Amino acid sequence: MSVKFAVLGHGVVGSGVVELFYKNKESIEKRAGTEMDVKYILDLRDFPDSPYKDKFTKDFNDILNDDEVTAVAECMGGVEPAFTFVKACLERGKSVSTSNKELVAEKGDILLAAAKAHSCNFFFEASVGGAIPIIRPLHKCLAANDISAVAGILNGTTNFILTKMYKENMSFGDALALAQQLGYAEKDPTADIEGHDACRKICIISSLVFGKHVYPKSVFTKGISEISLDDVKNADSMGFAVKLIASVRRLDNGKILPAVMPMLVPYDNIISNVNDVFNAVTVDGDGIDKVMFYGRGAGKLPTASAVLGDVIDSVKHSVTVFSQSWESSDDDKFIEPVANFSARWYIRDSSGSRITDKVMTFAEASALGADSCIPVLE
Amino acid sequence: MSVKFAVLGHGVVGSGVVELFYKNKESIEKRAGTEMDVKYILDLRDFPDSPYKDKFTKDFNDILNDDEVTAVAECMGGVEPAFTFVKACLERGKSVSTSNKELVAEKGDILLAAAKAHSCNFFFEASVGGAIPIIRPLHKCLAANDISAVAGILNGTTNFILTKMYKENMSFGDALALAQQLGYAEKDPTADIEGHDACRKICIISSLVFGKHVYPKSVFTKGISEISLDDVKNADSMGFAVKLIASVRRLDNGKILPAVMPMLVPYDNIISNVNDVFNAVTVDGDGIDKVMFYGRGAGKLPTASAVLGDVIDSVKHSVTVFSQSWESSDDDKFIEPVANFSARWYIRDSSGSRITDKVMTFAEASALGADSCIPVLE
Repeated sequence: MSVKFAVLGHGVVGSGVVELFYKNKESIEKRAGTEMDVKYILDLRDFPDSPYKDKFTKDFNDILNDDEVTAVAECMGGVEPAFTFVKACLERGKSVSTSNKELVAEKGDILLAAAKAHSCNFFFEASVGGAIPIIRPLHKCLAANDISAVAGILNGTTNFILTKMYKENMSFGDALALAQQLGYAEKDPTADIEGHDACRKICIISSLVFGKHVYPKSVFTKGISEISLDDVKNADSMGFAVKLIASVRRLDNGKILPAVMPMLVPYDNIISNVNDVFNAVTVDGDGIDKVMFYGRGAGKLPTASAVLGDVIDSVKHSVTVFSQSWESSDDDKFIEPVANFSARWYIRDSSGSRITDKVMTFAEASALGADSCIPVLE
Repeated sequence: MSVKFAVLGHGVVGSGVVELFYKNKESIEKRAGTEMDVKYILDLRDFPDSPYKDKFTKDFNDILNDDEVTAVAECMGGVEPAFTFVKACLERGKSVSTSNKELVAEKGDILLAAAKAHSCNFFFEASVGGAIPIIRPLHKCLAANDISAVAGILNGTTNFILTKMYKENMSFGDALALAQQLGYAEKDPTADIEGHDACRKICIISSLVFGKHVYPKSVFTKGISEISLDDVKNADSMGFAVKLIASVRRLDNGKILPAVMPMLVPYDNIISNVNDVFNAVTVDGDGIDKVMFYGRGAGKLPTASAVLGDVIDSVKHSVTVFSQSWESSDDDKFIEPVANFSARWYIRDSSGSRITDKVMTFAEASALGADSCIPVLE
């Protein structure tokens, strides 16, 4: 029997899924234990020169109503119409694998419940860290651990800019322009630069690790646009790299504190050596102490690799993977206000720059009225 | 229904499995989707003060013949009697999860076949890289990739010694003595120092990635006992860290070349920043480019975390995981002789030390008759 799957969207990621699948079809089928093929590619545009032009459709119902299609790769991006399409597929028992972080961060709980109700799977390895295996390791390999914290560099664009600033003394503006020139940043770079992209990813990780849906609106998010070259140089001379860190920790009061903000990372923490467009995620647990996952967080084939890995896994599962789920949340009372985020702080004011000796809360550090105030990742 | 499992061996790892399981029982059962309990602990010794003393047995047949036991954690180490016990369990349809790298490296093909024949699973995440998720990510998350190379620091003892040499100018002998004092090295440190431990791990990875059983005897293995402080200092001044690297690559002729030897790692390769007892593995594939996994490669709870993660996964699978398998090998004709291992080389002779401009084979470099001759990891 041959398993047929559909790819929704033929943009960068969707076309990468089709390309990588046909490149490695033989070994993929060996790993899946079954023959596989792409039956449909959904896109409103025409691709008359594609070698797969016979597979294109503009009508989602062709896919939804075809019982031979048992798995779907969603690579459209954005909440709608992706949400409507994905939910409809799951309700027909078709497993869906997605690269769409906005969809998972906003609607993950609903889609996981739909998958469970219809004995299929909603997978989203590609939505966090691109090529880097992180979702499956978190809920499978580390399942025996009490995980207390996750922190990482989850946006490649901002990491590229910060690396150029401290390795090559570029200003923020010049580094951003270079990132745009190289295709690492969009024309409108807001979602990357202001931290919204990293925020969606830490929402997904927080929901998976702590079991309740964390919405982007509940997470304090600060980007890197206020980071000056002075701050980066000062930090370097004190033994720290400035990185945009998305993090979540569980506090002693049982609440969790997710946040996205620039932080100073000591050079003896391996995260400080993660440069250019690379991403990395560290996980702290009582069994493992600390593990780190590192790789390319974006790009056509890296993201396609993660989507396809999920598709292959989904055709092997006839039941819902229980450990990859979380509950809906009615409120955000389980989330600690960022005012109580505590750390040592880098302070720059009229008397110079320094790292505070003592741990202070975000509220206390902000009250100092310094020109620049950045927490240290311990 | 409550799932009952048994733990074979109550040494460092086996006692860690029991300890971590009871510490996190509630969250583990939530992730497994079922109640779970340890029914037996097999050990020839007496543990009269253990809180679990009622669970101990000295008779393996108590476990084998108890149909209520559906999963087993093997933490005894060594090939026998572990092999006999594990095979018998699999032949009764009991899934086995092991931390025993020697067992997997010598008998993995046989045990995987036994698991397949009896619709259960033989899992071994803990056998490579301790706490670090690597086996499951390799065959699941990266399943869409054509993997061309894997390289890593797979032995914490030797990495600790090398780190002390280049960070603190310690001699090899002093660093080894310190490792023994801290419990990182055994009284007889041969298996670590001479690379045998890393060799078993790269055999397991090579077998999984390339699909045929690679035996330790087929893998060129050189340890760190000949590395002098001079070499480490010279390498550092040229921008390299000396690391014991276990690697495997697929060559253009279709053969694979696994090897364990000290290598010079450039400081801009993130592997060079992996210090002390930490391990790390990089994977090169056509979709992902390069990913890295990092963490504690040994120790009671880190290894127990990996074993328990497998046990939790095994109670959820009612069929054999197809992608985690390889074939037996009748000969080693698919393995390229180490004489053809090609790299740039660090050379130290009477005229000083240098890195060769051109790539040479192992045979060519050895023929130079230098006092020291170490390949560069690119």
